[in-house]
Amino acid sequence: MFSDPGRPQVARTLVGELAEHVGRRVTLMGWLHRQRRLSQVSFLIVRDRSGLGQVVVEDAGQAAQTAGLAPETVLAVSGEVVAAAQAPGGAELHRPQIEVIAAPVEQPPLELWRPTLSAQLPTLLDLAPLALRHPRHRAIFEVAAASVAGFREALDRLGFTEIQTPKIVGSATESGANVFALDYFGRPAYLAQSPQFYKQTMVGVFERVYETGPVFRAEPHDTPRHLSEYVSLDAELGFIADHHDVMAVARDAVAGMVDSIQSRAPGAIAALSLALPNVPAQIPSIEFTEALHLIGEDTGESLQGEPDLAPAHERWLSEWAVREHGSELLFVTGYPIVKRPFYTHPDPLRPELSNSFDLLFRGLELITGGQRLHRYEDYLRALRDRGEGPADYDGYLQAFKFGMPPHGGFALGLERWVARLTGAANIRETTLFPRDLNRLSP
Amino acid sequence: MFSDPGRPQVARTLVGELAEHVGRRVTLMGWLHRQRRLSQVSFLIVRDRSGLGQVVVEDAGQAAQTAGLAPETVLAVSGEVVAAAQAPGGAELHRPQIEVIAAPVEQPPLELWRPTLSAQLPTLLDLAPLALRHPRHRAIFEVAAASVAGFREALDRLGFTEIQTPKIVGSATESGANVFALDYFGRPAYLAQSPQFYKQTMVGVFERVYETGPVFRAEPHDTPRHLSEYVSLDAELGFIADHHDVMAVARDAVAGMVDSIQSRAPGAIAALSLALPNVPAQIPSIEFTEALHLIGEDTGESLQGEPDLAPAHERWLSEWAVREHGSELLFVTGYPIVKRPFYTHPDPLRPELSNSFDLLFRGLELITGGQRLHRYEDYLRALRDRGEGPADYDGYLQAFKFGMPPHGGFALGLERWVARLTGAANIRETTLFPRDLNRLSP
Repeated sequence: MFSDPGRPQVARTLVGELAEHVGRRVTLMGWLHRQRRLSQVSFLIVRDRSGLGQVVVEDAGQAAQTAGLAPETVLAVSGEVVAAAQAPGGAELHRPQIEVIAAPVEQPPLELWRPTLSAQLPTLLDLAPLALRHPRHRAIFEVAAASVAGFREALDRLGFTEIQTPKIVGSATESGANVFALDYFGRPAYLAQSPQFYKQTMVGVFERVYETGPVFRAEPHDTPRHLSEYVSLDAELGFIADHHDVMAVARDAVAGMVDSIQSRAPGAIAALSLALPNVPAQIPSIEFTEALHLIGEDTGESLQGEPDLAPAHERWLSEWAVREHGSELLFVTGYPIVKRPFYTHPDPLRPELSNSFDLLFRGLELITGGQRLHRYEDYLRALRDRGEGPADYDGYLQAFKFGMPPHGGFALGLERWVARLTGAANIRETTLFPRDLNRLSP
Repeated sequence: MFSDPGRPQVARTLVGELAEHVGRRVTLMGWLHRQRRLSQVSFLIVRDRSGLGQVVVEDAGQAAQTAGLAPETVLAVSGEVVAAAQAPGGAELHRPQIEVIAAPVEQPPLELWRPTLSAQLPTLLDLAPLALRHPRHRAIFEVAAASVAGFREALDRLGFTEIQTPKIVGSATESGANVFALDYFGRPAYLAQSPQFYKQTMVGVFERVYETGPVFRAEPHDTPRHLSEYVSLDAELGFIADHHDVMAVARDAVAGMVDSIQSRAPGAIAALSLALPNVPAQIPSIEFTEALHLIGEDTGESLQGEPDLAPAHERWLSEWAVREHGSELLFVTGYPIVKRPFYTHPDPLRPELSNSFDLLFRGLELITGGQRLHRYEDYLRALRDRGEGPADYDGYLQAFKFGMPPHGGFALGLERWVARLTGAANIRETTLFPRDLNRLSP
C-alpha cells in the first residue's frame, strides 16, 4: 500500500499487530468502535479487519474533541505503542494524533460495541450494511468463507476440478415446482435450482467436479429454514461402486471444512464460542429402514412404510448417534426411491429403496446425495415413469448417450451448515443479504 | 474408493500412474478414446482424468471383439503394465481383460481422437457434453479452474475475505440497461449485473473482499465477446490512497492466476501450447491522455477529447507496451469520468478525469477498476447529477452513511481472460455452456 513513489507514504499497522511494535510510532486506520470517557483519561477502541485496538487519550482538550466523534467514524490514529496487559492484544496507542478520514452522517442506529445486538432480526437485516460490522456478526461470515475454502481444498486434494455452470436454464425440468421464471430476450427461461444436470454432465469430462455457487428456489414458505437464493456446495464423481464412495468423499469434504475453520478462522471460533464437530474417519451410518425401526421401538410410533424421515426423526437419530457412536454426524442410507429425484439409482437388490444418503448434523439434514442412473435407457425409463418425454432433457441426456460411468454426488447448503455450527436459529442470520418471500433488499 | 468391506474391492489405477506400476497387474477405468487395428496387433487408447493410456491387444479373437466397441465406451481394463518408450507416459497395458461398464447408444458424432475437432462452433456448443471431453477442449477449463484458484490464493494471502452476495436484486440500478427481469413472487426483481454494490458495502465489514461468481447481462449483441452470463472475479479493498493501491492488488491477482496455471495445470499448458505472460513486479502504466497523444502521433488520428479508447487503440497500446516495456500487460489510468459509472472517484486535481484504470492484456481490456466515492454526500450529488434520487439506492447508501474509508476495486471476466490466454477467437469457446441472445441450452 501507498507504495507509488509520487504519493504520500503512510505505513499502516493493523491493530492485531500492535504488540509487535511496542516502543515505535505507528498509524492505525479503522472505525471508531467505542469510546469510554473516564475522569482522567479517555479510551478509543478502533476496529479494523484484524480486531479491536485501544487508543489512550490523556490530554483533556483532545479528549473533549474526540468526545464529539460518532461511533463508526473512520479514523487514522498515529501514536506510540505501549505494552499494556489489560489492552486487547497486550499493547495500546499513546499520545495519539487523530485524523478523521470519514464521518458518519448520522448516529448509527445500532450499538456495535455491545457484546450482542439486541434488535430484532428484521431490523438487523434491514440494517445489514451496519449490523454485519458487529464482531460476532462478521465472524459468522468468516466461518462461511473458511468453510468454502476448506471444501475446495479437500476436493482439490482428491483430484476434483472446479466448474462454473449456467444459472440461467432453458427448462424448468429438474423439479418443476418452485422455479423462478425470467424474460430471456422475449422467451421464457428459468433460474437453476441446482447444478445437478451440469455436474453430472461434467463427470464425462473431468470425472470429479465441484461447484460452489448460488442456486435459486422460489420457496413460497416463510420459515427459518428457507431462502429463495442460497450457496450450494456441489460435488459429483465417476467410477464409483455405489453411494458409499460418494459418502467417503462427502466425509472428507466436511472434515476439510472443519479443518479450514480451525486454521483460517480462529478469531471467529473465539468470538462465537464455536464448538466444532469431531469428524470421525468413518462417519457412522444407519440404513433408513433400520432407522425407522429404532425410532418406532423407542417412540411407539408406527413408522413402517414411511417414505421419508420427519424432522423429529432426524433429531432423534442425531441424538442416537451421539449416544451410540459419540458422533454429531450420522449417515442415513437407502431412502425409499419414491421420494428421491428421477435420476436416483435404485438399490440393485431392493429396487424400492435407493443408493442414496443424507448426512445428519446436529439434528438436521446437512448433505443429501447418492448414486445416479448412468445408462441412457434407464433415464428414458425413469422419465417415462414420470410421464415425461426426453425432449426437454436433450442436453442432459447427451452425456448418458455417449458413455457415462457409474457416478454420484452430493450437495451441501452453506448457510445451513454455518447455522448449525453457530447455533443460529434462523438461516437468515448466516446469509449476508438474504432473499425470501418478502425480502429483496438490501 | 471401493473401500467398504461388503463391496467388491477393485483398486483403480489412473493411466497417468501406469509407469509407476511396471511389472504389476492393474485395472484402468476410462473411456475408449481411440482404437487402432494393425495386422498383428490392436491398440486401445483409454482416456481418464489423468490423460491417455495405451492397451495392447495381441489375441486375434479379442481384437475382433474389441473392434465392435464404439468410441466413448466406458471400460475397465485389467492387465500387465509393461514399459514401452513409444507409449504415452512410457508404459502400456498388455494381455488385457476388458469389461464394458457402459456402452454409447449411438456412434458419437464427433471424433474425439483427432488433434482438433473440425466441426463449426455452433455444432460444438450443441454437442458440448461430448465436445468438452476432447483433451484440448477440457484443457481450456483446467486453465479456468486453475485461474480462479490462483485469484483466490493471491487475495487470501493479502488478507481478503471471500463473500457470497445475492444475484437476485430488487432494483435495476447499477446501470439500468441490459438487465434481466424476473417474476419474484409476483413483483419484479432483476439479476445482478455485478456484485459492485455489495462488495463495496462489505468493505465496511471486512475491508478487503472478493467474490467469484456469475453475473448477468441482457446483452442484445451477438458478438464473439458478449455473453449474457459470465463469471466475474471481483475484489474490493478499503484504506487506499487512490487507485494505484487497487492496481497493485490487481497485479498480484493476475500474477497469482498465472502461477496457479503453471503449478496446477501443466498438462493443459502442454495440450494448448500456452504461452503464459510474464507479470512484471510493476506492470507498466500510461495515463489515458498520454495514451491518446501517443496513438494520435503514430496514426495521425485526431483523438483529443475522446472519452474512451476504441478497440483498435487498445491493440495499439498493447503493441506499444510490448515494444517499449517488454510487457504484455499495460495499465491505462485516468479515464475521463463521463464514461465511468456514477460511483467512480474523480481525480482530485483534474476532476474531469477519474481515479480509474483498465488493465490491457494482449490488445484487450482484461480488468477494469478504480477508486470509488466513499462519502455519503458525494453519492447524493453523483445520483442527483444523473437525475436520480437516493430512494432506489437505500441499502447501498447505508454503507456510506455510517463511515466508509476510501476504497476501490476491480473486476476481471474469467472467460475473457482464458480466451486471451488460449487464443480463442470466441468467448463461447471458453465457457462450458454459454448463454447468449440465441442460446439457452445445453
